[in-house]
Amino acid sequence: MERPVITFLTDFGPESAPAICRGVMLGIARDAQIVDISHSVRKYAIRDGAYLLWSAVPWMPIGVHVVVVDPGVGTARRAIAIRTARGDILVGPDNGVLLPASVALGGPTEARVLENAELMLPRASSTFHGRDIFAPMAAHLAIGTPFEAIGRTVAVEELVPLELPAPRIEPGSLETSVLFVDSFGNIRLAGVPADLEAAIGSLTAGRTLELAFHGGAGGAAIRTTVPWGRTFGDVPLGSALLYENSFGQLALAVNQGDAAARLGVGAGQPVTVRPA
Amino acid sequence: MERPVITFLTDFGPESAPAICRGVMLGIARDAQIVDISHSVRKYAIRDGAYLLWSAVPWMPIGVHVVVVDPGVGTARRAIAIRTARGDILVGPDNGVLLPASVALGGPTEARVLENAELMLPRASSTFHGRDIFAPMAAHLAIGTPFEAIGRTVAVEELVPLELPAPRIEPGSLETSVLFVDSFGNIRLAGVPADLEAAIGSLTAGRTLELAFHGGAGGAAIRTTVPWGRTFGDVPLGSALLYENSFGQLALAVNQGDAAARLGVGAGQPVTVRPA
Amino acid sequence: MERPVITFLTDFGPESAPAICRGVMLGIARDAQIVDISHSVRKYAIRDGAYLLWSAVPWMPIGVHVVVVDPGVGTARRAIAIRTARGDILVGPDNGVLLPASVALGGPTEARVLENAELMLPRASSTFHGRDIFAPMAAHLAIGTPFEAIGRTVAVEELVPLELPAPRIEPGSLETSVLFVDSFGNIRLAGVPADLEAAIGSLTAGRTLELAFHGGAGGAAIRTTVPWGRTFGDVPLGSALLYENSFGQLALAVNQGDAAARLGVGAGQPVTVRPA
Repeated sequence: MERPVITFLTDFGPESAPAICRGVMLGIARDAQIVDISHSVRKYAIRDGAYLLWSAVPWMPIGVHVVVVDPGVGTARRAIAIRTARGDILVGPDNGVLLPASVALGGPTEARVLENAELMLPRASSTFHGRDIFAPMAAHLAIGTPFEAIGRTVAVEELVPLELPAPRIEPGSLETSVLFVDSFGNIRLAGVPADLEAAIGSLTAGRTLELAFHGGAGGAAIRTTVPWGRTFGDVPLGSALLYENSFGQLALAVNQGDAAARLGVGAGQPVTVRPA
Repeated sequence: MERPVITFLTDFGPESAPAICRGVMLGIARDAQIVDISHSVRKYAIRDGAYLLWSAVPWMPIGVHVVVVDPGVGTARRAIAIRTARGDILVGPDNGVLLPASVALGGPTEARVLENAELMLPRASSTFHGRDIFAPMAAHLAIGTPFEAIGRTVAVEELVPLELPAPRIEPGSLETSVLFVDSFGNIRLAGVPADLEAAIGSLTAGRTLELAFHGGAGGAAIRTTVPWGRTFGDVPLGSALLYENSFGQLALAVNQGDAAARLGVGAGQPVTVRPA
Repeated sequence: MERPVITFLTDFGPESAPAICRGVMLGIARDAQIVDISHSVRKYAIRDGAYLLWSAVPWMPIGVHVVVVDPGVGTARRAIAIRTARGDILVGPDNGVLLPASVALGGPTEARVLENAELMLPRASSTFHGRDIFAPMAAHLAIGTPFEAIGRTVAVEELVPLELPAPRIEPGSLETSVLFVDSFGNIRLAGVPADLEAAIGSLTAGRTLELAFHGGAGGAAIRTTVPWGRTFGDVPLGSALLYENSFGQLALAVNQGDAAARLGVGAGQPVTVRPA
């Protein structure tokens, strides 16, 4: 039998919490390949977790994907699992963090509440459900426990909703926003090149575009003019470009530099893109 | 045969040193499941390492647990392994870092000095015993090398002692201290709720408590008044609470905030807890 | 059959990019032992990546070693694999990052260009060859795809060269440079003790040496006088020493302190070592 894959994404940081969950998983599924997607999600940032999961799961083998970005731990929020059309199972809190990824995996086909105490640790704490509920549930599912065994179904429409930001196509401009800033300082925007082309026409190599980042600390928009390019090395060292990133989306980068730090922009800021 | 588990905790940081040890382990025990507990222990902080190991090992499968927080590497300090009642083996320097975890695993049953050069790398350096001694010893033990083969016994009482701080129950107050500040900024205190109840009576939900953190930079104690709660969401966003954390101990947290940064307190500071 | 080992070194940082590559590898080589050497290489720092790989691979089992420090991704730079005398295969961009490690593994025996699209992901992006080309190629090689299948040969002499800095032996001094500063703040210098002895004679324990770090921000050299020692504990807490580090090279450290921070020096600075 092929070794089961469990992926794991949290805001737990660099200490022992992810390893404790991994220990619990291995106690149940000793042969699992556990892939740490990241444990440096910004603390409590459900939307960042949802984005990172969405961007990562298509590249993972079919498996169980556990997310613990869970500021509501121990409150009445539900713990859930979602089955997807591709065959994966997503496990985490019912706060929306799993939903964009479920769409990326072909769409949710069934959701259930994590209720079966026999698939949890014997004594669940109020503040570490990653260890006590999510990790053991995921490991049981990974070794073949039927999805039906975990708890009663819940309609997907009744789950706490979360949609990643989407762009708005205007005549002559694309109104979008900063989805995420990665550790290179690349500014990932909502929307794909086809969205921008629908607003301003064909994106030929070198076409000059103006980006205006709104909502910053100073009040006035931060403006920058950059060419459309294919990869970082298309522009001189230290110069910026707008390009289709490796997830198919619009992004702004500086060749061997940090675009976000240079411009002073961050996740969530609205952005207007138009011809320069 | 089940795949052996080796856990690994160091102050080596984000570079290649943990991977080099992992490579050495896999060269001997190719099938091992190696769990990195953490490599971001504060440099040279034996007590922090001891605390993190103590808090993690009960959740790990029975296995070999290697710790390298070892400011005395290359000096006359001994390298040791401790067998525990649960069936685990702890491997590391004889500086106390292994002892609290050995108690958490049922108590030490036997200790030996790492002496058998055939179970080490051929040429041991003076400054990287993690790679040259601890990693290969652990891997050999993980694949079934008898505990007796590693070296002569040493009485547990002769090992360098280390005890984690404990609280003192006074009439009307608990005198404790900050054990650890985690990456959420949660302030973990020495002692369990029963200790606090022995000092001040029953901890009902919402009961108001005053904490005084002594020994800070400014001289005067830092005081804060918080309710007793069960989980973060029991108090409003940005408010603090005292609670039983997921390791059974007293802790102070801010709902979606960083308690330690807000109060400006750190590990080791004495704390008085009393009714407000 | 023994589980194949794939090691992985990048400048991708703490987010999901390394995990995405790991997911791709496991989709092809489900049973692989993947060792993350480090993902915190300084961004775009080919020389740092080359140094870290060189220092790590000798301790890894024979396997496939993937490096993605690749500022030229998507440009005309080649993607390559190098076979070594020890039996390893190195995979990465043709920017020199693989060469010092190939020498450490017995020397390169054959190099090939990564060309066979059947061993890559179906749609390669212009900016994430780690995921689309290097990871799948490495996984295919790890499970036994013949080296000849990846693409045409290229002469090793035609690869982009990179040599780690070397010291210059002068009468009465060693002219060297800072190779790397690790997370302990230890200052790793180019050269081995025999180089220093060729310049200034025998290195006896306690012999006093002067180091002058040139090229710093202030203009004047930063000078420090330290004894030759064997390990950190040979000098008092907070004192510095020059020693042979665990990779056989000259290094400056402070016992339980951060030598680089104290002196304010960093990678690349020239250093003169002479008797004090």
